[in-house]
Amino acid sequence: MDFPINISTTSDHPLHRQIYDEVRQAILSGRLPKGKRVPSTREMAKSIGVARATVTLAYDYLLSEGYFEAYRGSGTYVSRHLPDELIEAGEIGTIGEVLETDQSSTMPRPPSIQRPRQLSQYGKALQSRNWLGFPDHEPEIQFTFGRPDMDEFPMRIWSQLLSRHCRQRNLSLLDCPSRASGFEPLRSAIADYLARARAVVCDKEQVIVVNGSQQALDLVTRVLVDPGDTVGIEEPGYIGAQRAFQAQGAHLAPIFVDQGGVRVDYLKSRFDVSTNSSLKLLYVTPSHQYPTGVSLTLPRRLDLLSWAVRTGTILIEDDYDSEYRYKGKPIPALAGIDSGASVIYVGTFSKVLLPALRLGYLVVPKDLIDVFSRAKWLMDRHSSLIQQQVLSDFILEGHLERHIRRMRAIYSQRRQLMIDVLNGLFEKSVTIYGENAGINMLVRLKTEVPDDVLVERARNLGVGLVSTRNMYLGDAPRGEFLLNYGSLKEEQIIEGLTRLRSAMADRDELLPVESRF
Amino acid sequence: MDFPINISTTSDHPLHRQIYDEVRQAILSGRLPKGKRVPSTREMAKSIGVARATVTLAYDYLLSEGYFEAYRGSGTYVSRHLPDELIEAGEIGTIGEVLETDQSSTMPRPPSIQRPRQLSQYGKALQSRNWLGFPDHEPEIQFTFGRPDMDEFPMRIWSQLLSRHCRQRNLSLLDCPSRASGFEPLRSAIADYLARARAVVCDKEQVIVVNGSQQALDLVTRVLVDPGDTVGIEEPGYIGAQRAFQAQGAHLAPIFVDQGGVRVDYLKSRFDVSTNSSLKLLYVTPSHQYPTGVSLTLPRRLDLLSWAVRTGTILIEDDYDSEYRYKGKPIPALAGIDSGASVIYVGTFSKVLLPALRLGYLVVPKDLIDVFSRAKWLMDRHSSLIQQQVLSDFILEGHLERHIRRMRAIYSQRRQLMIDVLNGLFEKSVTIYGENAGINMLVRLKTEVPDDVLVERARNLGVGLVSTRNMYLGDAPRGEFLLNYGSLKEEQIIEGLTRLRSAMADRDELLPVESRF
Repeated sequence: MDFPINISTTSDHPLHRQIYDEVRQAILSGRLPKGKRVPSTREMAKSIGVARATVTLAYDYLLSEGYFEAYRGSGTYVSRHLPDELIEAGEIGTIGEVLETDQSSTMPRPPSIQRPRQLSQYGKALQSRNWLGFPDHEPEIQFTFGRPDMDEFPMRIWSQLLSRHCRQRNLSLLDCPSRASGFEPLRSAIADYLARARAVVCDKEQVIVVNGSQQALDLVTRVLVDPGDTVGIEEPGYIGAQRAFQAQGAHLAPIFVDQGGVRVDYLKSRFDVSTNSSLKLLYVTPSHQYPTGVSLTLPRRLDLLSWAVRTGTILIEDDYDSEYRYKGKPIPALAGIDSGASVIYVGTFSKVLLPALRLGYLVVPKDLIDVFSRAKWLMDRHSSLIQQQVLSDFILEGHLERHIRRMRAIYSQRRQLMIDVLNGLFEKSVTIYGENAGINMLVRLKTEVPDDVLVERARNLGVGLVSTRNMYLGDAPRGEFLLNYGSLKEEQIIEGLTRLRSAMADRDELLPVESRF
Repeated sequence: MDFPINISTTSDHPLHRQIYDEVRQAILSGRLPKGKRVPSTREMAKSIGVARATVTLAYDYLLSEGYFEAYRGSGTYVSRHLPDELIEAGEIGTIGEVLETDQSSTMPRPPSIQRPRQLSQYGKALQSRNWLGFPDHEPEIQFTFGRPDMDEFPMRIWSQLLSRHCRQRNLSLLDCPSRASGFEPLRSAIADYLARARAVVCDKEQVIVVNGSQQALDLVTRVLVDPGDTVGIEEPGYIGAQRAFQAQGAHLAPIFVDQGGVRVDYLKSRFDVSTNSSLKLLYVTPSHQYPTGVSLTLPRRLDLLSWAVRTGTILIEDDYDSEYRYKGKPIPALAGIDSGASVIYVGTFSKVLLPALRLGYLVVPKDLIDVFSRAKWLMDRHSSLIQQQVLSDFILEGHLERHIRRMRAIYSQRRQLMIDVLNGLFEKSVTIYGENAGINMLVRLKTEVPDDVLVERARNLGVGLVSTRNMYLGDAPRGEFLLNYGSLKEEQIIEGLTRLRSAMADRDELLPVESRF
């Protein structure tokens, strides 16, 4: 023996395993050179004082894994086919435990070699230093994220439905491309719901169940957008959509928004059959424009649809929070008055139920059903089946609409409180927009404090505040903030806005506002 | 009044709604022309015999939606800003019910205009006629899909854990890019499990939770592969990976597989520092090659790793069913002996638990953590939180490994039965490969019946059979089939194989096999 075999009968590891480990280390460190003859099992057993069967077991592993080679009649050798580089480097990680031994490997991890990676264009786009500036820690009171009130979610009902479906074990699978678009009863329930609630009349086949609206946007991007294409987005607009299109390599064409919604006149002046440039698609939020909260007027809707037919452009209608409208009748969704199969409708349950569920949907024109199902299959097969089953019952048994009605009343109170407290604290220095729908409102504060300073001061007071600066591709107005109030209780609203006011109280930093729309 | 208003007190619709609908239809059909003065609310109320407040409500909706314009002191007019095209076409869909009225719209859907769509290159790749040939209806006994036995899934435990987490309402959210990679306790549980079971030692930060291994492959594709890049895959190989890379526009370089796994010598002869061509990445299934079932030998593993370091190529190790090994010690995962940070490891719970859960993971080198988290955020924010919480407890409380041990015993019996029945029925006309691991085996049948005829005959006998033809980019051998047995009970195995044998029994269509490896 050219190397010591250290075995211990008090070790947690079985003897054959200890032998295996010792020999393997000796090979990998170069102490046992390639091509060297190793002792026979009988010799080895005698030399270290264990049963021959124990050594045979260890040798079998070493043979089966290619460390050893055996020649009939000639004995056993260290394999000659182990590459030199790795053996000499001696930096091989441990061969850890197999499942049966139930013990955990404790060898340190070998150091990684750092070298520049060849990422895709998509990967490179994500690597940019200032990609998205989300805070790492959430402040005590946050106006930052557009979340619903999760405490109000009817978790008891959801949990009962979960148990029911677990018992039923109805695991009929969705893992073929033709079924990737979702659990059929859920698609049907969504189609019926959309007809009732949003005047969107569609076949259940047109409904594609996805993991929230972000996956809907990603699917749309994959299926429709090539690098170099031009995609129209609202200015200001939703950052999750901007980033999805940008990462795909699209050029973004900002279409300005005013109090009537996205400016279709401006759109037509730049992209129409008479101009030389066209859009691959246009992303819009007609019900409650993000972030301004305005609603696209009916004349503009009709104008937009006829533009889409004329130019062959697909409209992506993101109807993310249209369920909550406090004043006036909801204007029907674009998809509800689309006679030209121009609209892909995006809906989500993240705002009406829970973002943690990751459930949303697309309604696509009939000629796009197959390609979207296949893309969904290729991206992640299908969305979680049990969650789809539960949601299906949740809708069919009326819980969804009951929950929406209940939450509309709750949010309506919070909305009014927001308005009252904002006006009370900031008086003429605040202007409120988009307060008639959704669970957020846009405010413009007339103040000498720069936006980033105000955000920082608010954070130090435990208040999360988001400026709309990143929602503009071009210049952003000063003092504009999006306040999400859906997840805040009434006392948190009062406390949060009071702290925000106090962030400007040390000097007389508020100035009266003139309307800037 | 230039048009009749038909209202009915017995209608399901409230009166104001009926007025609104009638007026709107009159405008959209052109009966009420643009710019026309409409009767005052008082006149209208009198003319149709309803309360004035009812008419006012209808007019308010028509004003707020832009059908009407009002000028102070001058009256109310049909808006002049409705685009002519859509009004004259008269094909506007109905404006359906709003949520409060809880009634469903019954107008027929307007016809879609069919025109060629400008899909992306990705979308076009998915549109090819023969994209994936999955049968629409599942046969009674199917050897087709690599599914586990879902009846054995410990649904009661899973359901109890679900209830627990529903009660706890721990909905701390994952919707920031820095948290998109998953629920931290789950990432930690996966890292510990991998160290125990697969000798993969990693930090929990390197674990990215995804919706099954298909999303893992999609993430890898997005972040690393550009159109025109060359990606190495095993020949034959996994079709879900092939399609993901192809749809992205990658060229596929098939690397042949023999009984020792993927042929690293062939790989090096074509793609190395001395050759002029390189791979962007190489996709491999070292533990249980798909579909041949062979295991990559240790010398080749070491050789492959040093090649990867030398050429700067990333290896994607898909370890889809390594938990089930019936003979010999599992060879450690590539990621477990990767000292060069070359390996991205892909794991899934679809084979050990349920595909319907859609849960899997990636282990990425440290320098790629951020870009993968961001990509996951942009693709669908994060995977379902409650499912992640349940899985986390399921692993931590030991259920996962108990379930794997139990299933290994069950599958081991089925495997032996498969071998015995195949040999009994087909005798010398069958050769079995890859039977020592996983929940499938490859068989080569020596028969004069063409593969597609055999698949068709089997289907007519209620047996789902999949030829490996689509798993080869180049020529496929005749008579090669992948038999998945994980989801089949013993009597189904016997019945299915007996029927398969009878599909060839009418003529003497079986010939003895010579080994073709």
